[in-house]
Amino acid sequence: MYNIEYYYSLIKSAFSKLSIPSSPESLYEPLRYSLSMNGKRIRPLLCLISCDLCNGDVNKAIPAALSLELFHNFTLIHDDIMDNANLRRGYPTVYKKWGINSGILSGDVMFAISYFEISKSVPELVNQLVSILTQTAIQVCEGQQYDLDFENKQHISTEEYLEMIRLKTAALIAASLKMGAIIANADEILQNKFYSFGEKIGLAFQIQDDLLDAYGDANKFGKTIGNDITTNKKTYLYVKAYEDADEEQKNKLIYLYSGKEINSVSKINEVLTIFNKLDILNKTKLKLNNLYEEAFSILEIMEISNTAKVFLKDFVSQLINREA
Amino acid sequence: MYNIEYYYSLIKSAFSKLSIPSSPESLYEPLRYSLSMNGKRIRPLLCLISCDLCNGDVNKAIPAALSLELFHNFTLIHDDIMDNANLRRGYPTVYKKWGINSGILSGDVMFAISYFEISKSVPELVNQLVSILTQTAIQVCEGQQYDLDFENKQHISTEEYLEMIRLKTAALIAASLKMGAIIANADEILQNKFYSFGEKIGLAFQIQDDLLDAYGDANKFGKTIGNDITTNKKTYLYVKAYEDADEEQKNKLIYLYSGKEINSVSKINEVLTIFNKLDILNKTKLKLNNLYEEAFSILEIMEISNTAKVFLKDFVSQLINREA
Repeated sequence: MYNIEYYYSLIKSAFSKLSIPSSPESLYEPLRYSLSMNGKRIRPLLCLISCDLCNGDVNKAIPAALSLELFHNFTLIHDDIMDNANLRRGYPTVYKKWGINSGILSGDVMFAISYFEISKSVPELVNQLVSILTQTAIQVCEGQQYDLDFENKQHISTEEYLEMIRLKTAALIAASLKMGAIIANADEILQNKFYSFGEKIGLAFQIQDDLLDAYGDANKFGKTIGNDITTNKKTYLYVKAYEDADEEQKNKLIYLYSGKEINSVSKINEVLTIFNKLDILNKTKLKLNNLYEEAFSILEIMEISNTAKVFLKDFVSQLINREA
Repeated sequence: MYNIEYYYSLIKSAFSKLSIPSSPESLYEPLRYSLSMNGKRIRPLLCLISCDLCNGDVNKAIPAALSLELFHNFTLIHDDIMDNANLRRGYPTVYKKWGINSGILSGDVMFAISYFEISKSVPELVNQLVSILTQTAIQVCEGQQYDLDFENKQHISTEEYLEMIRLKTAALIAASLKMGAIIANADEILQNKFYSFGEKIGLAFQIQDDLLDAYGDANKFGKTIGNDITTNKKTYLYVKAYEDADEEQKNKLIYLYSGKEINSVSKINEVLTIFNKLDILNKTKLKLNNLYEEAFSILEIMEISNTAKVFLKDFVSQLINREA
């Protein structure tokens, strides 16, 4: 089969059938709003893809696919509160629109509904899928906490940064692919290869996002360039720059990221000047290439057809190049 | 067996063995703090009790018991943020001590860990237990939302109030008892009787709490008398009073609960004067008695031994009289 449009239509149809109670409206309206944003549905897509590539019935992966997207949206709603984010996909965030209490509570209920959906999977697989969702949820919370902790930490090693994004971002991408393989009754070795592959591309997606924030084309990227710099967000680029910087550059970076009122445009330019001096663009691209190579070398040894491998590689490449 | 001290020691020992990761400390320290408060562990106790009364192995109910308490504590942490509560069991609330972000995130991870623990139950029961936990979680969120909505609503019927506390409080008490019966392999009829019994006593516990806030003995109650009145909390007493009040009393209640700066002591006295005129103390006691009678009439027709019935009735009576 191997058809992204078809998977996407399945996911879209499943979401349209998702029965969200109408009452209390103040609880479920923010939830519906959040889901109506039409994200890229990358996690559900990956779940259906891995299921299909393992010759499974993609319809059986729908509950897990919905669950993954619901879980992802729950984390976005809570993260937006913690990050004081005003906008998400160009629209006001839930907590900006309805307040912190609504953000907390509609996030909580969305987390619960993600378990409700995954419990509709093939009964003999529910235990295993619930375990993975739970394990992933714990990792995502840990990752978010490390991310918050980094705000007040001067020196973060690239290893620490990679571990943070592994937990916060890559674990859910990896879990999405693994769940699809489980639902297709793939053997454990293949399940775990999908997980490892997902971890690598999950790390790459985040670093790619970091890169685009500083070096992307604003028109294609769909976000303001330099937003991470303006908000003192410690990205892979910052962490790598700090690691490679001399004393003077380190102090300059600390000063620029100190949260003091510094004119945004000149701040972005000053940071980019340091990044450029330290060749951070190429170093980050190198890291990305390494991650993709690692991911694709795992793909190579997967016990799936060559057509399947080409299909997955193409899909991931499209995601990579979507906004660069 | 039927021994509360023994059940309690099992729960205590299980909590002492609960392995909470050490890192990130900023995530898990608030969680450990919240659990160290040593609440009354009513929900785990009820779970072990119903399991034992159905001739089940209480050790098999430990994961569910832990899960119920973890879930309960998660809701307390998030509720305290939403209610701006400074103190919980006499200690600073998590969010007052560590901030809103820590409250949100350590609550989230505690919710996830409650699923982690319940998944350790007897494998063939995990699906069913996870479903109940999920269904209950959704109900608790809905109940909390209605409670928040009531803050801005002038007229709440007693039916609406009872539905709110059924969702917010009684559903978890009911689920605790049902889970114990499930783990003991009790038949569905008995499981559902435990659930219905739990719903009734759950409602009663909350109304008892409402009553004690206005008419309790401060020394025995362990809380400040009139706190619900001071904070404009719409309790069963308020809702019943508003329902029975004449126009003048209604307007007075609206004024007193309008959130305007009104001297606390005189406000409490004025509200109590209205409550007294409307005989709210006795009306509330009547409602409580009805609920207990309904609960005990369900208990009567349960297919468990008479000794078991007496034991459960005694335990519930102790809980009722604990602080009155």
